[in-house]
Amino acid sequence: MTNVLFTFTVKDHLIKQLQNEFPDVEFTFSSIKDIDALEQAEIIMTYGEDISIETLKQASALKWLMVASAGLEKLPLREIAERDILITNVKGIHKTPMAESVMAHLLSIKRALPWMYLQQDKSEWRKRSGSSELYGSKALVIGPGAIGSEIGRLLQAFKVTTTGCNRSGNHALHMDHMISFDQLNDVLPTVDIVISVLPSTPETRGLLTYEHFVLMKKDAIFMNFGRGDLVKEEQLVKAMQERQIAFAVLDVFEKEPLGKNHPLWTMEGVIVSPHVSSHSSEYVSRALNIFIENLHQWNKEGSDYKNIIDSEKGY
Amino acid sequence: MTNVLFTFTVKDHLIKQLQNEFPDVEFTFSSIKDIDALEQAEIIMTYGEDISIETLKQASALKWLMVASAGLEKLPLREIAERDILITNVKGIHKTPMAESVMAHLLSIKRALPWMYLQQDKSEWRKRSGSSELYGSKALVIGPGAIGSEIGRLLQAFKVTTTGCNRSGNHALHMDHMISFDQLNDVLPTVDIVISVLPSTPETRGLLTYEHFVLMKKDAIFMNFGRGDLVKEEQLVKAMQERQIAFAVLDVFEKEPLGKNHPLWTMEGVIVSPHVSSHSSEYVSRALNIFIENLHQWNKEGSDYKNIIDSEKGY
Repeated sequence: MTNVLFTFTVKDHLIKQLQNEFPDVEFTFSSIKDIDALEQAEIIMTYGEDISIETLKQASALKWLMVASAGLEKLPLREIAERDILITNVKGIHKTPMAESVMAHLLSIKRALPWMYLQQDKSEWRKRSGSSELYGSKALVIGPGAIGSEIGRLLQAFKVTTTGCNRSGNHALHMDHMISFDQLNDVLPTVDIVISVLPSTPETRGLLTYEHFVLMKKDAIFMNFGRGDLVKEEQLVKAMQERQIAFAVLDVFEKEPLGKNHPLWTMEGVIVSPHVSSHSSEYVSRALNIFIENLHQWNKEGSDYKNIIDSEKGY
Repeated sequence: MTNVLFTFTVKDHLIKQLQNEFPDVEFTFSSIKDIDALEQAEIIMTYGEDISIETLKQASALKWLMVASAGLEKLPLREIAERDILITNVKGIHKTPMAESVMAHLLSIKRALPWMYLQQDKSEWRKRSGSSELYGSKALVIGPGAIGSEIGRLLQAFKVTTTGCNRSGNHALHMDHMISFDQLNDVLPTVDIVISVLPSTPETRGLLTYEHFVLMKKDAIFMNFGRGDLVKEEQLVKAMQERQIAFAVLDVFEKEPLGKNHPLWTMEGVIVSPHVSSHSSEYVSRALNIFIENLHQWNKEGSDYKNIIDSEKGY
């Protein structure tokens, strides 16, 4: 009998669904600190943050690590590679909630929703909202992969012109134009919205600097929905203090959680999203769908797993 | 020389644009209380609220009334018809800002933006946002004309199933299904979002009642972006008090402005938008574009005016 350890709990109806679909599998819903379960587990389903070198040693039966998130940069990949443990993740399930989050923030700003909520707090009927439109804007999407392209698709529905930016400048879906990283300086002064969904890699760390914000329009909106190390926070803070751009909507930070006294919390034009842009009531059931598909492969000793991660490369 | 009275002011660059394009027209930017200008005006450009029977009498030279809004129900239409004054409006310029407002509110609720703004106010990093998705929802659009269809187009981009509802049940753009007013009771229990963009007519006044809200899902979102007399406010308040539905986003009210002590300001699940959903920084220049087109007709004594209103019917 295969032993599966979930290091998080899921709703009862989802547990029942798993048990019904896999009567020969023993599921334990507990935590990484459940030493008995950890030692017996051939399969671990985790959000990833609880997997350390130490954990791995105790999980002596482990054959397959299923990570219910996208970023794997904190996993002990070398040790996983040495033991030849299969890693899979849930790549692809983030694009809908993240793209909806990006659109929600953009439309909220354009249609003056934060202003409106404040008015309502004071029971004040005023009409000078200062609202504008998304329609006809120009957006730059840095890192137009699955998530960035979905953002591009929705932006285009609002008649926003989309420019994608990646290393090569090669074609990406739902982008009207493409540029490469080294053309950034030419394009930044021409766009209204700059959205990054880049992962953290040696090439993306520190890709944006204070000077890039100086190049942007004064009324530009910058959104970082990728990783916090894209730009040094002190440089971003300086740019916002000087009002080089109008808005920064930030879902990711150099250090998370953001400290209680961090200046970003209270700066004008800064919106702090506590790394929840991919969250959704649908998240767990979508993650389980991928896990279930892969668990059928496991049961029939197949090899056609979904979202296999190369533990040498980390993606 | 033709005299035009604007009863509101516009930005300098727009005034210059008008003067350059029409050197033989005398533009006065003032108010309806400017008796001299009112008496001489052959053309009045107004938002409509300042036009009374009294005003009309004083405007003895008036030949054409250009109304920079959509709802004309408060104009003295009979007197206008008797004097055979041409009326035109700006129908069509509301659809982009209104559809963006509807999408902004829906996405803000689904992606938990009001929660997020409150967290930021307290500099609190928490992740239990309770966010969900618009994706896969079902929406009912009551009154799918130009504005409703634009809302439908955007909803469909988010993979929302759209049902349009009008008097006849006849086809409307960007609606997956159509129903007529008398099928409302069957469909209300099945949809997640109910949006009205109906104008005020004898047929639409009081169309929705308390019982309709009882029929809706407990987690439904109701949006009134048409006219406030669609539903008696006391019935809507009762439904919200009883939590018959989760959210009511209201851009229009029985009596505007909403009184300081009105219960809707502070009710849970109610979002008060002070009749600004059609506002936009682009509004005036779009209204002027229609006016300019029509003024060229006037100058060449043509008859092909845009958005002529039948003063007997009022639309």
